[in-house]
Amino acid sequence: MSQKQISFWFEFASTYSYLSAWRIEDLAAQAGVDVVWRPFLLGPIFAAQGWTSSPFNVYEAKGKNMWRDLERQTTAYGLPFQPPDPFPQHSLTAARVALAALETPQGPAFCKAVYRRQFGAGQSLSDPATLTGALADAGLPETLADRASDPEIKQRLKDTGAEAAAHELFGAPSFVAGTELFWGDDRLEQAIDWALRH
Amino acid sequence: MSQKQISFWFEFASTYSYLSAWRIEDLAAQAGVDVVWRPFLLGPIFAAQGWTSSPFNVYEAKGKNMWRDLERQTTAYGLPFQPPDPFPQHSLTAARVALAALETPQGPAFCKAVYRRQFGAGQSLSDPATLTGALADAGLPETLADRASDPEIKQRLKDTGAEAAAHELFGAPSFVAGTELFWGDDRLEQAIDWALRH
Repeated sequence: MSQKQISFWFEFASTYSYLSAWRIEDLAAQAGVDVVWRPFLLGPIFAAQGWTSSPFNVYEAKGKNMWRDLERQTTAYGLPFQPPDPFPQHSLTAARVALAALETPQGPAFCKAVYRRQFGAGQSLSDPATLTGALADAGLPETLADRASDPEIKQRLKDTGAEAAAHELFGAPSFVAGTELFWGDDRLEQAIDWALRH
Repeated sequence: MSQKQISFWFEFASTYSYLSAWRIEDLAAQAGVDVVWRPFLLGPIFAAQGWTSSPFNVYEAKGKNMWRDLERQTTAYGLPFQPPDPFPQHSLTAARVALAALETPQGPAFCKAVYRRQFGAGQSLSDPATLTGALADAGLPETLADRASDPEIKQRLKDTGAEAAAHELFGAPSFVAGTELFWGDDRLEQAIDWALRH
């Protein structure tokens, strides 16, 4: 019997992806579902929708409520919360390093460390120390950060963007189980359940 | 001891408000929280954000996912699902009649009947038979529909819009417990819990 599987599409600058990154492993393990971590960039997708920034900046009242909601959700989930300034952060380098880190079993730990440093401690993704610190948190060599300039990694991230567009992803986090698309941290449990039953 | 209370802000054209309208009474009653039904219009709020239609029409991939998500959610909640065409429907008259209906104890039943006819049976809000049918469903006289042209009701809906703006509402359904704002059907349980504990 083949193992059930869910793809977890996340963007490092995305606030709600922080919640899912820290919740998905336990929930999926309890259900017996494998998780495939798929870092991608929302920038090109948002730009295609006519947004030059996060919709949480474009729409002020929506953004204000998002920050308050995130404060409530992190409290409920027992996660630290300290937003970075500015928001959103530039996530290109983090996404490239994540692709390299995810070639190892410590990849998810690196991704979670990046989120915790960014949204739990307010650290900048543009500060190289944030990424090397997250590599160290995950037990990975800091030299892995150099892979961000690896042409093969750069191309892989571009290909990932094309795949995200093919899945018609429009936000993050998103979960794909088979051909079924679920959007938002609030659908994480349902997506895992779908993967289990189909 | 004063009774705990939650305000339920809904827009008849809003798909996720359909879910909350059918879920809120039981959940609030179980928690011992009173519900104040507040119909309002999203149109002016969306227009202020630069949208001339529902964001689910403005952003195609988001809209496609919303309809699939709504199909899954209505199945989970045991609600009928048949979208109206076109979407969104014109909700002005329905909102005005609702304000009149909510002067009676059958007000919530009328609102739920409008939602069920619109999103559960695909009926048009522009067809007078939909609203008179919903009045009958709720055990209210069909003549109540005439109140839609009552200047006092018209003014009350305008005042409601100003109040919605003051609460910085940006979508529907929204829930207000004290000064705390919760957005979306996914936050209904949390909003009720907040009202209970504060």
